[in-house]
Amino acid sequence: MNGMNGHGPDISGFSHAKGQYFLREAFKVIFEETICKSTDVNEKVCDWQDPEQLEQLLDLELRDSGESHDQLLSRVHDVAKYSVKTNHPRFFNQLFSGIDYHALAGRLLTETLNTSQYTYEVAPVFVLMEDVVLTKLRSMVGWLSGDGIFCPGGSISNIFGMNVARYHAFPEVKRQGLWALPRLAVFTSQDSHYSVKKAASFLGIGTDNVFLVKTDQSGSMDPEDLEGKIKLARSQGAVPFYVNATSGTTVRGAFDPLDSIADICEKNGLWMHVDAAWGGSVLFSKKHRHLLKGIERANSVTWNPHKMLSTGLQCSVFLVRDTTNLLQKCHSASATYLFQQDKFYDMSLDTGDKTIQCGRKVDCLKLWLMWKAVGTKGLTERVDKAFALTRYLAEEIEKREGFQLLYKPQFVNTCFWYIPPSLRGKENSADYKDRLSQVAPAIKERMIKQGTMMVGYQPLNGQVNFFRMIVISPHISQRDMDFCLDEIERLGKDL
Amino acid sequence: MNGMNGHGPDISGFSHAKGQYFLREAFKVIFEETICKSTDVNEKVCDWQDPEQLEQLLDLELRDSGESHDQLLSRVHDVAKYSVKTNHPRFFNQLFSGIDYHALAGRLLTETLNTSQYTYEVAPVFVLMEDVVLTKLRSMVGWLSGDGIFCPGGSISNIFGMNVARYHAFPEVKRQGLWALPRLAVFTSQDSHYSVKKAASFLGIGTDNVFLVKTDQSGSMDPEDLEGKIKLARSQGAVPFYVNATSGTTVRGAFDPLDSIADICEKNGLWMHVDAAWGGSVLFSKKHRHLLKGIERANSVTWNPHKMLSTGLQCSVFLVRDTTNLLQKCHSASATYLFQQDKFYDMSLDTGDKTIQCGRKVDCLKLWLMWKAVGTKGLTERVDKAFALTRYLAEEIEKREGFQLLYKPQFVNTCFWYIPPSLRGKENSADYKDRLSQVAPAIKERMIKQGTMMVGYQPLNGQVNFFRMIVISPHISQRDMDFCLDEIERLGKDL
Repeated sequence: MNGMNGHGPDISGFSHAKGQYFLREAFKVIFEETICKSTDVNEKVCDWQDPEQLEQLLDLELRDSGESHDQLLSRVHDVAKYSVKTNHPRFFNQLFSGIDYHALAGRLLTETLNTSQYTYEVAPVFVLMEDVVLTKLRSMVGWLSGDGIFCPGGSISNIFGMNVARYHAFPEVKRQGLWALPRLAVFTSQDSHYSVKKAASFLGIGTDNVFLVKTDQSGSMDPEDLEGKIKLARSQGAVPFYVNATSGTTVRGAFDPLDSIADICEKNGLWMHVDAAWGGSVLFSKKHRHLLKGIERANSVTWNPHKMLSTGLQCSVFLVRDTTNLLQKCHSASATYLFQQDKFYDMSLDTGDKTIQCGRKVDCLKLWLMWKAVGTKGLTERVDKAFALTRYLAEEIEKREGFQLLYKPQFVNTCFWYIPPSLRGKENSADYKDRLSQVAPAIKERMIKQGTMMVGYQPLNGQVNFFRMIVISPHISQRDMDFCLDEIERLGKDL
Repeated sequence: MNGMNGHGPDISGFSHAKGQYFLREAFKVIFEETICKSTDVNEKVCDWQDPEQLEQLLDLELRDSGESHDQLLSRVHDVAKYSVKTNHPRFFNQLFSGIDYHALAGRLLTETLNTSQYTYEVAPVFVLMEDVVLTKLRSMVGWLSGDGIFCPGGSISNIFGMNVARYHAFPEVKRQGLWALPRLAVFTSQDSHYSVKKAASFLGIGTDNVFLVKTDQSGSMDPEDLEGKIKLARSQGAVPFYVNATSGTTVRGAFDPLDSIADICEKNGLWMHVDAAWGGSVLFSKKHRHLLKGIERANSVTWNPHKMLSTGLQCSVFLVRDTTNLLQKCHSASATYLFQQDKFYDMSLDTGDKTIQCGRKVDCLKLWLMWKAVGTKGLTERVDKAFALTRYLAEEIEKREGFQLLYKPQFVNTCFWYIPPSLRGKENSADYKDRLSQVAPAIKERMIKQGTMMVGYQPLNGQVNFFRMIVISPHISQRDMDFCLDEIERLGKDL
């Protein structure tokens, strides 16, 4: 058999030397296509193809035989060409965008090292680094002690919040399941992220036991209604145990009043989790961190640096204030093949049993390297710049005919309608809302097909489809804000 | 404010040009340290440092101010230097190892594109690619239709199995929670992965409701005992609904008898999940795929290409045979800001609601690009080569004095004791087992401190600490097998 004897020719015809040559050549293509071009404002954000066309262009089928070096390089090129350029200065579509070169270097290093974050044995650097990063993030929350872990995304961090809270209130659940417990009730605002409902169904609590609390005009949770909903749940025989407050709602970027919610949680003996997946990074800003006032009173926090800080997906932390090793107790299974208790080093460094995962990607390095590169000050400047640009955008929207702001932005989400000339002054027509609801999807289709920019839209709480523009990339400017409004007008004025 | 007007100088002092220059320089360091050196048999597998020393060497603290280009490059160098080289030909410590350069190119491309796998809108290439890869993997399982999704690791894939099975049996659980259901029971072998227990506690079922089925001498589930445990659960008033069979157990690499288990599941109306996280890749081998005979009768399968196929972490799939959109029905929350129902393209392409995650890393590209590069044939050769090398290793162990095989390997896990001269012939001494149990940890400490190789050890089912050697890297040879045995002898002969 080939390659069986010594380090000679390898099976499948690729030696280390050939593999390394391919990798260098591939990196050149990647650099040109997904870094140089994708950050160039003169290039397209996306090169739209219908699914059927794209399938033909890509030739995705997996076959018996392998392909040549040149064919593979053209595949790398094509995957890049037809992918959306989230690094592009005109990508405002999601709660992530932009590129941080230091974080990206951290990601490339993570990928080539390819280890798992469970033990000091196989991840010595990253076990220590994760601890330093988590400690620093906790200190920004206002905690001098506590625990935490990096999770694969904010939804899973939020599910951890609910699970740890449940275990804290009823440790017998781990062994006996929910049948040993009374019916539980959780509380979250109607504008909160859908992962709260997903958590409730996944953990066996059920979405019927998620009580949706009203929001006020700005999209923040109404504490009075929270108290009412807690009473309502109790009157139905359910046992409240968990409140999910949101710092930075997904659509409107609203911040729940954490101090008031903390008062209610303390009075009622409830676990307070703050989903700051989106808004957590505001803690970097001295000017704006008041939006999260009271977060230090939470029991746990979700925070996704892959959003506002542009570290790259996935970079989400789950933080807990607890100092009794609750996270480990709740999630551990003490596998003897991995967490041997006769190792020669301090086995508390084998942190992998704090999660429900076994193998776990290293997610701390990209954030750590970026932080080393620009310092806390640099991250603060970026957050402040995003707020300032958003204020500029909102002011421009208010000035421009045909644009209508839904709310004054609290954060870096700007929600607005574009009203084409054909609809202006017709607010009282019976079909106004219907027609307005079709404007954003129509403009979105045109912008994607032309590839000039990307911005999201959605309806919310009876408001018909409106644009939600997200401003975070460290590399954008007022010029990009102006462009977006001009472009929406250009694309939609005939509608 | 800096950088607010036009694309001029950027905040934090780094422009695109500077960032790109850093990235190129960093990639050179990464290439040298984590690719060239880490695959060089003459370099160390790990450069052991005590945690206290390592903390000092790395200077992990995050500060207010950023660092210079040169400082950052030396940080990249140091992170690489002190990390374990899982690409190294002498790394046999985990169920992953080795390097595939095409998969790595796919990972670098994934990182620079930085998108999320939820909608066709932001991940057109990857939505189509994921579907092609899942379809191909399903066809290898033996299914011409079905569904699936990439998950962040095998544990989460296994948790999905249990959750989808629960929803299938009791769809009301999603809304009403477990209180609306009878006490449930799940079944798995005593040698199965600990994620089955983690799943049960996380989903609110409780570990007491996980019935551990006995294994036979080879480590495979005993179907008779499974039937007995099902009866036992029923006699206790619990409702069996889920059997987790394992294809490739973590320690011994055993394969459960899938056909017999399928018979029992069919007879009892139970969901059959196969945790083939480790052994799934054996399906590539015509010669060895009989080990998974009956997998096509499963309802769902976990399979981690990041293990035996060396795609790099994370690459795990959850596959279901169901064709009624069960995965989506079970996990969906229909967020209107993301899964708008008035998009201009086929919205069934927005597959993100099939998972409990929101943002989801792209995990298909690395596998796809590797498969394109070497073809199904190349992957088949690799799997066959790993089996052949394992057979060689086991034969060598049987030949060598002082080495004792625990079981004839079914797969690529080789479990053995090294018995130092001081213990040979003393099998009947009262302290033999105690002393033998200390041999593997002592050798492990020496090998890590010298950095010459890495291999795992653990006790199991009353057998004291033994080595578990995992052979998968496409770049290793008989010479590496010989080295490992020589090295264990060298490190342990004085014990």
